[in-house]
Order: sequence, then structure tokens, then C-alpha cells
Amino acid sequence: MRLLHPENVEDIALGAAVLGTGGGGDPYIGKLMGIQAIREFGPVTLLSLDEIDDDALIVPTAMMGAPTVMVEKLPKGDEIIKAFQALESYLGQKITATMSAEAGGLNSVTPLTVAARLRLPMVDCDGMGRAFPELQMVTATLYGISATPFAMGDEKGNNAILNTINNRWTERFARSLTIDMGCTALIACYATKGKELKQWGVPNTMTLVEKIGRTIREARKSNINVVKAVREVVGGFQIFKGKIVDVQRRTEAGFAKGEAVFEGVDEYASQTLKLQFQNENLVAMLDGEAVVSVPDLITVLETESGEPITTEALRYGFRVTVLGIPCNEKWRTPEGLAVVGPHYFGYDIEYVPVEKRYG
Amino acid sequence: MRLLHPENVEDIALGAAVLGTGGGGDPYIGKLMGIQAIREFGPVTLLSLDEIDDDALIVPTAMMGAPTVMVEKLPKGDEIIKAFQALESYLGQKITATMSAEAGGLNSVTPLTVAARLRLPMVDCDGMGRAFPELQMVTATLYGISATPFAMGDEKGNNAILNTINNRWTERFARSLTIDMGCTALIACYATKGKELKQWGVPNTMTLVEKIGRTIREARKSNINVVKAVREVVGGFQIFKGKIVDVQRRTEAGFAKGEAVFEGVDEYASQTLKLQFQNENLVAMLDGEAVVSVPDLITVLETESGEPITTEALRYGFRVTVLGIPCNEKWRTPEGLAVVGPHYFGYDIEYVPVEKRYG
Repeated sequence: MRLLHPENVEDIALGAAVLGTGGGGDPYIGKLMGIQAIREFGPVTLLSLDEIDDDALIVPTAMMGAPTVMVEKLPKGDEIIKAFQALESYLGQKITATMSAEAGGLNSVTPLTVAARLRLPMVDCDGMGRAFPELQMVTATLYGISATPFAMGDEKGNNAILNTINNRWTERFARSLTIDMGCTALIACYATKGKELKQWGVPNTMTLVEKIGRTIREARKSNINVVKAVREVVGGFQIFKGKIVDVQRRTEAGFAKGEAVFEGVDEYASQTLKLQFQNENLVAMLDGEAVVSVPDLITVLETESGEPITTEALRYGFRVTVLGIPCNEKWRTPEGLAVVGPHYFGYDIEYVPVEKRYG
Repeated sequence: MRLLHPENVEDIALGAAVLGTGGGGDPYIGKLMGIQAIREFGPVTLLSLDEIDDDALIVPTAMMGAPTVMVEKLPKGDEIIKAFQALESYLGQKITATMSAEAGGLNSVTPLTVAARLRLPMVDCDGMGRAFPELQMVTATLYGISATPFAMGDEKGNNAILNTINNRWTERFARSLTIDMGCTALIACYATKGKELKQWGVPNTMTLVEKIGRTIREARKSNINVVKAVREVVGGFQIFKGKIVDVQRRTEAGFAKGEAVFEGVDEYASQTLKLQFQNENLVAMLDGEAVVSVPDLITVLETESGEPITTEALRYGFRVTVLGIPCNEKWRTPEGLAVVGPHYFGYDIEYVPVEKRYG
């Protein structure tokens, strides 16, 4: 157990954007929201998974929608409280803690607002070990945990509670409502008992992302190679270094979809990397060959500063280094790949663990 | 107070299709569903508005979606029970009766399933005095009654509860979810106290539509002019007689939208009537001039049989008589016209009460 203060939030949002693989929301907005919540309501208690009672009732909270819209339409702050409380009242049970559904610059700290305002602890884990675009893509799904009852709310004061026969229906309904709500919504879902969470939760995510963020910050200060320092913490492989020469991006069906093209420098000179994304980076193609794909992580860092670049921030001229990082083992089973593998996203490629190609 | 038996249902569904102005669902399907419910669970008690306690809690139930889809995708029957019970449990209060949201071949009898199965009475009234395509278009809206909490369910077992800041947001969210649910859904909404319902309810709708249906049936039997007999019950004016020469229809944004063209016969020879619809008939244009528009009723009857023709059943060759019928007074106020007048539907025409032109 420890307390999260504003300085922790800064590192968490930055580090989470590395695992966010381009998605999970803008770390700058995440930082501002998290710091604001703690300044106003006091530090948040972070509990490790093994400090949770088996009977505790934990509800992840997150922002849902297109990151391209999120950067222009900030949450008011109380819509997530209302969604959370709507779920609590619907469940008729006291919720004892919240947590991150995904590691991402915004969604790693979104639950801080809930935790700070409602004086609830937050659990040091998440449901992906990275960020993914659709809401059934959490390890909870692999353990038969229902996303519903699912609560969502917007900044206007509208809210909804969904009950669905499976988590893909939740995604479909919630995505439609998110679009109606203006392409962003605040959600509370996957209500889960402590005992279950110990099975499906990806442990220590908050601590890991904070460490990544701190590493970036300290490396910058001491003028050492930031990208290298990040790699020492997260593991994984450098798969490309170059500059962005083209970005195509569209907000479609409530997602930010598109493709970025990188021209290589140094040892990658005359090579081209294409990166396809749907909120998150999905597949990296090196000279036409898929070299890293979901569920493994593809992270784009600004070469000089080590700043993780979200898909909505990709733009012409950026000098970047691209990392491929092994995903959590839970995603590598046939069941996991059915939910988040390249086939699900419509790619006709087989998943090859990144360490097989680069290790 | 009286009991509704299968023979009443037959007349109700048929007569309601006259007030349904082309929408409110297919009377044949409505008849089958209503009769089935009563055969299985016993007759339904129909209470007049003044037999309702001021403290009674009444919840209208209906089918929502595109009639073009409804004729091919019948409800299972238990989805509306589930939506109704989801709302009851959400409200935490016993619902004492149900009612029709609109007069229409299907939606006048949809609540019979709920009433029969749950042994609840049904109130002899509706929320429109006709049918309209969008769910904020009920007299309840004019009296400040919220559509939410709004419950909806599909045949797969999915359901949702919406809470919105006004009834147009309910329509928007519910329409999106209806599309996701396969263009049809069962809904329960506008929970209202008996005292309020006495203000906003359009009284005696069930009795009126049953009388219309009985009139059609008996006129056919005795070989008298059915259309004329209907007019004697519902009032209104004959505005056209002819045959259908063209129908354009599309299922768009969860609605059946389109236009039908009629060529005149007898005194209307060489005249052309165009009828524009969105689930319901909205505007009738005679030789280019709008002669009847919402909120007044435009009803298309087969000239020979007096059968009301729904918008999804309009087709080339039908011989039809078109009636214009004055709407309920509640719709003729500036507030009423803002909700259901021609401007709302995007027509640049002023509403002229049908009796001013034809009376």
C-alpha cells in the first residue's frame, strides 16, 4: 500500500503512454486530470493485488472514444463519478475500489479522479498490460467475467446502463452510444470480486508505468539515451528508427483509424516502416512484411526526447524510434489471440511473438 | 372496466392501423401477438383513465424500430417482459399498469403481451392519439414527463437502461441501440403517476380503435361502403382516391423512409398525390401543394376492403382512398407543433388544420 501524489501521476501518465502503444489517451490530458483530482481531494491509496480482500468489489473506470476527439473535448470530471455511482446503485452493493482497464496515458489515470473524489483505493493492476481499442479486449473476458452491468455517462448528464449476453455486444452498444455522446464517454464496467481479479488482473501495472515514466524523466535530466533507458525497463526490441513521412488518419465508427509511414535512418536507411492503427498501433510492416503485430506492443518514441507518441499525435517530420515489446502471456493463448490477435482486426497474418523475430 | 378477449384484439389491431397513419406496426402481426398472449394467459383488464388511482404507476410499452424489418423479425415475446421488469427493478417500485404509447396496428396491442403475462391491467388511452415515428413525440413530452428511465431489450437477451437530460436524447440513444439490436427493440418508458397520466393521456384510444375495427369488419360483412363507414366513426375528410403508381422506400437510420405516388380516379382523375413518410405518413402533396401534414392524420385505406395500408405495405397497383383526420388538440399548440409539426420533419410548410382546407 502506498499513496499516489501529483508527482507520481506525472510519471504514471508518461510511462503508461509507452505501454499504451499509441492509444489509451493523451498523457498530457491524463496528467492534468489526475493531478487536479489529487490536489482537490487528496492523495489516492494504491493497493497491490494481494492486498485486496477476496470479497472486495472492484470496478474499473475509463474513458471510451476516439482519441482524436478526446484531445479537444475534455471530460468535466463529474460524468465518470455519475457513471460509477449509477453502476453502484444498480448493483445495490458498495464498490470498494477502482482500477485501470488499460495502460494508457489517459486511462491509467482516469480512475484517479474516481478514487480521489470518492475516497476509494485504486488497485495496482490493469486489464490489458497495454491498451487496446475495444472494450471486450481485457483479460477479464478470457476469464468469463462480464463487462455488464456496464455504466456510461457523458458531460451533458446523460447516462446508460447496459446488460448484454457477451462482451462484444457491450462493445457494440457502448460504441454506438459513445458516438451519440460526442465520440467520448466515461465508463464503469467489469465489476469483479477480489478473488477473480487476482486471476485476471495484470499485476503491478501502475508501479511499472510509474517506473517507466520516472526513467524517462531522469534520463532526460542526466542527458543519457532515453530510448535505451526505456528499453532497459520495459524490455522488448528496437525495430525501427526513422522519420514520419506520411500520416493518414480518419475518425471512423468512433475510432481513430489510419496509417503512418516512416522512412529509415542509420542502420534502417532506405527501409520503410508502415504502421497501421485503430486508436492503438496494430501492425508494423517493414518493407511490406509484418514484423510486429497485436497483441505484442508497438510503441513509437520520439528519438531525441523518448516521448511516447500517441496515434493522434503522429505527424510529418517527427524523428522516431519504434519498439516491439512482448505482450502479457495471457494474450498468447488461442483464446487470447481470438480476442486481440491480428485476425480479429482483419489482418491475414499469423501472430509471431516479437522475441522470435528479434530475440 | 372491462375485459379484452381475442375477438376484441382483432378489432383493436385493425382499427388502430387506421389511426396509425401508416405506422405503428403491422396489424396482422399485432393481432397474432395479442391473441396469442390472451389465449395463453387469460383476458386483459382494460381500465378507463378515471378508474386509475392518482398514485398508480403506469408504464407504456411498445416496439421500436423500422416497420420494414418488423414484418420479418417478430418478437419472441419475453424480451418486452424483460425490459419491463428491468425498468421495474430499476425504479424499485411496483408498476401497476401498462398502456399503449401510440395507436398503431402493432403498438396498440404490444402492451397486451405485458398485461396478459404479468396479470396487469391496461389503461384505455395512448400518448399520441395516432402513431408518430420518434419516441419523444408523445403528449407526455408536452407535460414535462421524462421518457427515462427508459428500458429496452432485444430477442437475444440484451437490454439497456437509459437516463437522459431530455426526451430527444432518449430517442437518439434508443434509435442507435435499436439499430444495433437488429432494427427492432422492445421498450418500456415514460413511467408516470395516475394523476399525471390523466393530464397527458389521450383518453379512450383503445375503445375508439376497437370501434373503428368493428365498423370495418361489420361493413365488410354487410357489403356497405367501408371507407364511408370508417369516416363516420373517425371523422375527417376524403382527400384523394386513386391507385398507387410508384413507391420508393429505404430503411435509413433505423426508419422506413420514402414516398408513394398515387394517380387519381373518379373526381380526382388527372390529379396526382404524393405521400411522404417516415414510418408514418407525414405530408400529402396534391399536384405539388401540401394539403395535409403532421400532426393531422393521413390514412391510406384500400378502397374496396377499407383495409388500412401501412407504409411498409404500400405497393404498385393498390386502389386506395386517402383520408385526412384532425389530430388531438394537444398537438395543435405551438409547443405541440414544435415537437411534431412539419418544420420538425424538415418540411418548409406551415401547418394548416385539415378541417380548414376541407371542412
